[in-house]
Amino acid sequence: MTSAGKTLRLGVAGLGTVGGGLLKLIERQAELRLPGKLEVVAVSARNKTRNRGVDISKFKWFDDPVELALSPDIDVVVELVGGSDGPAKRTVEAALRSGKAVVSANKALIAEHGMEIAALAEKHEAHLLFEAAVAGAIPIVRAVKNSLSGVIVSRVSGILNGTCNYILSEMLRTGAAYETVLAEAQRLGYAESDPFLDVSGGDAAHKVLILAAIAFGAQPDFAQVQVEGIDRIEAIDIALANKFDYRIKLVAEAFRANGSVRCRVAPVLVKSDHPLASVNGALNAVMVEGEPVGRLTFTGPGAGAGPTAAAVMGDLARLFEGPATPPLGKPSRNLAPLITAADGTTDQGSFFIGARLADKPGTFAALTEQLGDAGVSIDKLIQESAGDSGAAPIAILTHPCPRSAVETALARVAELKLTADTPRLLRIETRA
Amino acid sequence: MTSAGKTLRLGVAGLGTVGGGLLKLIERQAELRLPGKLEVVAVSARNKTRNRGVDISKFKWFDDPVELALSPDIDVVVELVGGSDGPAKRTVEAALRSGKAVVSANKALIAEHGMEIAALAEKHEAHLLFEAAVAGAIPIVRAVKNSLSGVIVSRVSGILNGTCNYILSEMLRTGAAYETVLAEAQRLGYAESDPFLDVSGGDAAHKVLILAAIAFGAQPDFAQVQVEGIDRIEAIDIALANKFDYRIKLVAEAFRANGSVRCRVAPVLVKSDHPLASVNGALNAVMVEGEPVGRLTFTGPGAGAGPTAAAVMGDLARLFEGPATPPLGKPSRNLAPLITAADGTTDQGSFFIGARLADKPGTFAALTEQLGDAGVSIDKLIQESAGDSGAAPIAILTHPCPRSAVETALARVAELKLTADTPRLLRIETRA
Repeated sequence: MTSAGKTLRLGVAGLGTVGGGLLKLIERQAELRLPGKLEVVAVSARNKTRNRGVDISKFKWFDDPVELALSPDIDVVVELVGGSDGPAKRTVEAALRSGKAVVSANKALIAEHGMEIAALAEKHEAHLLFEAAVAGAIPIVRAVKNSLSGVIVSRVSGILNGTCNYILSEMLRTGAAYETVLAEAQRLGYAESDPFLDVSGGDAAHKVLILAAIAFGAQPDFAQVQVEGIDRIEAIDIALANKFDYRIKLVAEAFRANGSVRCRVAPVLVKSDHPLASVNGALNAVMVEGEPVGRLTFTGPGAGAGPTAAAVMGDLARLFEGPATPPLGKPSRNLAPLITAADGTTDQGSFFIGARLADKPGTFAALTEQLGDAGVSIDKLIQESAGDSGAAPIAILTHPCPRSAVETALARVAELKLTADTPRLLRIETRA
Repeated sequence: MTSAGKTLRLGVAGLGTVGGGLLKLIERQAELRLPGKLEVVAVSARNKTRNRGVDISKFKWFDDPVELALSPDIDVVVELVGGSDGPAKRTVEAALRSGKAVVSANKALIAEHGMEIAALAEKHEAHLLFEAAVAGAIPIVRAVKNSLSGVIVSRVSGILNGTCNYILSEMLRTGAAYETVLAEAQRLGYAESDPFLDVSGGDAAHKVLILAAIAFGAQPDFAQVQVEGIDRIEAIDIALANKFDYRIKLVAEAFRANGSVRCRVAPVLVKSDHPLASVNGALNAVMVEGEPVGRLTFTGPGAGAGPTAAAVMGDLARLFEGPATPPLGKPSRNLAPLITAADGTTDQGSFFIGARLADKPGTFAALTEQLGDAGVSIDKLIQESAGDSGAAPIAILTHPCPRSAVETALARVAELKLTADTPRLLRIETRA
């Protein structure tokens, strides 16, 4: 039996941008194609009086979201509190323990406590859905979990953080410095007042780990994800990469490698005709590759009140369709500890080195000599005019070589103080 | 209750390319992430002895797929027979009447008899799933039906026929004539030996109608879809459009217009930076637009044994999840007769005219005079050298005007025999 035509009674915990967007969308439910009715019964947030553009006086108010989760007149808890621990986790656990369905947008919670929370949902045969946790309005969680369960996935990759993508796109477009563009992004609402989780790559890492768990039947293990952010990228790196016809994108990816699954987030150079190169601004894109389909690409808005609320709504619609299934696809007891951080020293590839040369004679020759000594062969290079600073920006693209060789060379370059700043070492994506 | 862990017994009707691909994928099910087991019990096809690269001797054989559908030792009928009527329809009906689940790749059947078949499935509370009917491996049917049921869709559009897209891409790439490229596509297996359904736009029309029905809660009504194919497009049209930085793509679209839904398929000029412009070869792409998400784009292989088999597999996985839901999203009795062919004479837009001028003096001036007299103002034009034929190719882009005005002018042009061939009149997509 489905519960089509029935009414689901919701408690919404967290009334930030997404919570407000959700309440507004629920008010328009007659225009949607839901299989039943949604009735908001109760809400909870830190601030009762903040103006959210929606009248919340008609809902029961809870100061404590855990109290809301335990309320007997609620069928579903929508968790929009956020954060991997604290009230969000307690709220979700309380709801699942009382057999309530949970719809959550909380990537940190699923990425860091996925095994524990999934097992709890399974034990209580409760729905735990989190489409809104990954790639905003793009319905990628359900696609990978259900529609593509007939695909032997080899790789999931993409641009999963709109803030970073906006910043990198704007640094290319305007030539402005990272700090300037970040400040502008904050002013426009594309970046949080504390941007650390976004710009460090942590948020993208949470998301790709969730996709990896589902796509590969792997236990989410956040400690195994290799994460590098965008906060050290300079505008000159982006400009020089562009001269070689590359874009710098924060790419999150999970792929099969030697019987395990590797999960990593890093700024990467992609050729201008690569599918991710044209994904600009706050958009997200996810590519799923595997047999027997080749590659599927999903693109759309990855954040914001409307897109995230729509993703939550898609999960709410799912609740009418039938009973709960395991949150991560396979039952959590059948997930394998596949995700393992590779020993980076064995990585092979072509690399980009961006730096500013120290303002003294012969540095460029000395730097290339160090690369040669370490066995790193140069494919292309640019040196720009030093200008007033005296520190000439350079960009080097290497031929394929071990990453460790480049790192050895750069360690010597640092010892010899050949650069005026700390060089940026980025991988070049050679897959089309 | 879900039927996770259970075994579903399948009867596969139709063992062409897709059927063979499905049997191979089922043999690899241990590598997939299905919630239960699939066991092929019986098969049916026109030719028992054809080599399909799979041993079918272990399956029960039926000459008549309807007999297979009625077999009591089968839970699910996979209908890969094809065709809107005849054995495919009888097989699906027999299966649904006996309460069996049906998974079908048959776009013609759903587009032309969707209301009737959906009502039958609902009456017998039987699953009727058809992810493989639209856009191959792209899981767009379920996305629109379920995940995006919280989106107020305003438009669904895209490239839904890989054969046409391959032909148009190759005509641009090689400059070869339509007939040459079609023959090559047939040789490579990208086009059927009878290509009519593809090149006429009929196949894309079937697919967009299915998406429209689900996205808008509309009764599928194939007679209301306006369809134009690619078989009159000349290589010179594509080359000249390209000089203006446009690509010619067969675009299928359904959108809200004046309280109804308009559904149409036609070759259209899209700017080179339009999301559909870079979708080349046999790829498909679907864009879903609506509140509060903006635009989502899904890209991937739209046909072929592997991709289509994977889509069928996604539907088979769904069968384990729970009871049947209405095949078209809303119960068929709640679907409204929204899809209506607009009176084309009221269409406004900018247009492309491609033709070859008659080999006599003053034709170009006479032609532009006819356009002017009809109120059609020219934005850009090219005339190429006539070469040996004496008939100089031209391309004209108009400023926005009523389509009827261009048609009036072209009728006069035909009366006056100003062109050596029948001009091609194509719409220019002005939405980014």
